[in-house]
Order: sequence, then C-alpha cells, then structure tokens
Amino acid sequence: MASKTARLLLFFTVATFSFCFSSGQDAETPPAAPSPPICGSVRMAIEAHNIVGWRTVSPECAEYVAGYMSGDRYGRDSDIVIDQAIAYAESLKLSGQGKEIWVFDVDETALSTLPYQANHGYGAQPYDQSSFLQYVAQGSAPALQGTLRLYRRLLQLGIKPVFLTDRTEDQRAVTTNNLLQQGYCNWEKLVLQPTGQQISTQAFKTCERQKLVSSGSIIVGNIGDQWSDILGSPEGCRTFKFPNPMYYVA
Amino acid sequence: MASKTARLLLFFTVATFSFCFSSGQDAETPPAAPSPPICGSVRMAIEAHNIVGWRTVSPECAEYVAGYMSGDRYGRDSDIVIDQAIAYAESLKLSGQGKEIWVFDVDETALSTLPYQANHGYGAQPYDQSSFLQYVAQGSAPALQGTLRLYRRLLQLGIKPVFLTDRTEDQRAVTTNNLLQQGYCNWEKLVLQPTGQQISTQAFKTCERQKLVSSGSIIVGNIGDQWSDILGSPEGCRTFKFPNPMYYVA
Repeated sequence: MASKTARLLLFFTVATFSFCFSSGQDAETPPAAPSPPICGSVRMAIEAHNIVGWRTVSPECAEYVAGYMSGDRYGRDSDIVIDQAIAYAESLKLSGQGKEIWVFDVDETALSTLPYQANHGYGAQPYDQSSFLQYVAQGSAPALQGTLRLYRRLLQLGIKPVFLTDRTEDQRAVTTNNLLQQGYCNWEKLVLQPTGQQISTQAFKTCERQKLVSSGSIIVGNIGDQWSDILGSPEGCRTFKFPNPMYYVA
Repeated sequence: MASKTARLLLFFTVATFSFCFSSGQDAETPPAAPSPPICGSVRMAIEAHNIVGWRTVSPECAEYVAGYMSGDRYGRDSDIVIDQAIAYAESLKLSGQGKEIWVFDVDETALSTLPYQANHGYGAQPYDQSSFLQYVAQGSAPALQGTLRLYRRLLQLGIKPVFLTDRTEDQRAVTTNNLLQQGYCNWEKLVLQPTGQQISTQAFKTCERQKLVSSGSIIVGNIGDQWSDILGSPEGCRTFKFPNPMYYVA
C-alpha cells in the first residue's frame, strides 16, 4: 500500500441489499447477515479490472472480504497465479546475457499487510495513512509464500528480481530489512518513489519500467496486486495480477 | 467464437485432482464428483488474464463450468460488468459532434452461443469448427440481455455502437440479421474479418480500432469476453471484460 494514499476518492458502488432477520432474534444483537451472493461477483469484477476507482469495501461485503482473506480461498487463488507465473518463467529461453528481469510489487505481492488489515476491517474501513505507515515502519510484514516461491525459482533460472514499489525513499531501509528477513535475499534493484512525489502509481511505475528497458533490461514478467502495477507500456512480456479485494490504488 | 478457430493449441493446465468416492457406491456408475474448489480459482485466474493460451476446460472443472454458465452466477457476474459500463458511460461528457463510439464484440458479448455450448460440453469438448459454424449460420443466437441493456443506454446517450468481431465477411448477412432480430437495431459499423485472413484476433481488432481512431472516432468504451478483444492500443478509454470461462481466443 504505502503511498496508496493515492487511493481514489470514488466509491465502490454496489447495489444496496436488504437482509432478512429471522423472527425471535434480539433486535439489538442481530445475527451476522450472510454475505450477499453479489460480493463474489464484485470481487471477480475487481480482479478483471471492471470495477475501478473504489475507496473502501462496501459494508455489505465486509464480512465476505474478511472471510476470503482469512480463509483458504485467497491462498488458492494466489497459488494459481504463482503456478502460472512459474510455468511461464520455466518456458522462457534466456539470452544468457543476464538481461532478463522480473518486476515485483511489494505490498500485497512480495510482502503481506494482512496483520494490519486484520485489525482494520480488511478494507472496509477508510484508509488511515498514519496507522498504515506505522505498520510499514515496524518492518514485520510477512512474505507471501507463493511469491517467495516464484522469486526463488526465478533466481534458480537466472532471471533477476526488481522490486518496484510506491513505498517512498524514506522507507528504503525498513523495506530492505523486511525483504531480507523474509527470505528475499538479493535483487537487481529496489526502486522506490521519491518522497513527496505526487503522481499516480501507474504513471510512476510505467516510467520506471521504461527506464529499466532503456538501460537494456528485458522485463520478462511483472507481478502485482493492483492493475496500476501491471498496466502501462512497457508492461513486461507477461503480467500477473495477484488477488486483492481489499483496496484499490490508481 | 467464429474464427475462434484461432484458439491456441496450448493446454489449460491445472493440477490433477483425486476424487474420493464414498464406499458402497456402484463402481461403474460413480456419483457426480463435487467440483474441486480450485475450479473457482481457475475461473478467477482466467478472468484476470493470469491463465492464457488454454484450449479446453479441464475434465475436473467441466461440471463446475457447466453449472456456472447455466446457473445464476454467470448472470450476476455479467450484470456487475454491465452496471459498471453504464455508470461509466453516463459519467461521460460528450463532444456533441457524434464522434464517440463504443466497441462491442459479438459472440459471448452481444450474442450468446450458450444454446450451442450446452450441447457441446460448455468448453470441455475440443472446439469443432464445423458444428460451430452451423450454429452461427442458423442466425438464432440470443442476445445477452445485459449487453443489450448497455447498448440501448448508449444509444440514448448518443454514443454510437460499433460491432467488431472475428466472424468473417461471409457471415455478414447472417450476423446482421441475427443482431437485428435480437434487438440491436442499428449501429455505426459492423466490422468483420476478411474471409480466410490468418492473423490473431487481437492483431485484427487492434488494427481495426486504430482505423476507427484514425478516421476521427473516439472509442470511449470497449467490451468483450476475451482479453484479445480489449488489449492492444488503442484499447479505448475504458475496457470491460465480460465473463467467459468456456474458451480462449488469442
């Protein structure tokens, strides 16, 4: 997330739902309402880039998203993406000149903010920059194990990792230490935003990928949890959208 | 689908699953195995463009996809996409010069091949061009009602529809009649592929969108069920991925 301060001020509009409570329930302590079926459709539409510019998870889908992130489904969905990425990487014929790189986003791709999200409604509460920056500053974000698996396989194959994040330069030390402690043991570059820069994540990342290509690198793969990580030429020869129904970054 | 002849010869690789049958069942007529949970993750990965180049739905997920397409979920997922597209269209400020167009794919976007798919395993059987062309030639494909709703709203708003399909010129008459009979009452253009052309759908559609832009049109929206409908510059100001877990077109 980091300067996912840039989160758009538009609302994630979904239909309003009526819930039926069975009779005899205490009106002051209603049972947890079942998640409306539409929440799965909303999540799908987010992943396919059909819903954009939303700010928070709707109240109706808060429980659904919390269950998704804390249950098995998030891991299954992630594993499929990683399996595809590894199969693709293994299919490549490399130049032998060490030019091939793979771009990784950091938050919700290489490292997880789930410990933070679990205490802040899994995206149902408005983004609070102060508490989020405190979380980042702790340097305790756990690795997403699937991404770490991909990272290790890429190193074996000779594809160099580049971390490209909208975290800012003043977070370089904590980010470096966090990545190292979580098993991301080396990388070609860790590219962070200049502190205080006011451009969109997509514009920043596209510009940085262009610099990488201009310097002779071949971006064979690019993985991120936001479409703003993977849209914008040069995207990379192939892109992978890691699941994230909790927040949107433009 | 049409010259979705171009479907890649790669396989849709998913993990192999073991099914457990309860004891006492007749070994020759086992009960329908429950769809593995991973089928939902595979569908998600297809919609997010993480799985590409697959040829058929895997046997393990055949029942899942059939249930998805013939049940409520396909309609719900589709409606979310259409709702977003309409909200976006309504938010536009038009030039007043009639330059704004919206690009629609035909098969599985404007018109449905579900009556055909229902008799051919919902994507679990290898593509059979002969029987598919017979289906198209009948001119009986029903409209996808959500897309028709979007189409009608665009006409009200003054945005001109363009149909851009990998159906071929020899299918112009039947396609025109089918669209008209299903309520698509007029359009700016119906662009079909030259019969016998051997390029990918994505290359063909990108080239045709470029011609539209070069002639002064503004592609404000672009909707299709395949990523090859909506990738490739100029994509359109916004793109919408209509759900389709049954087949892949490059």
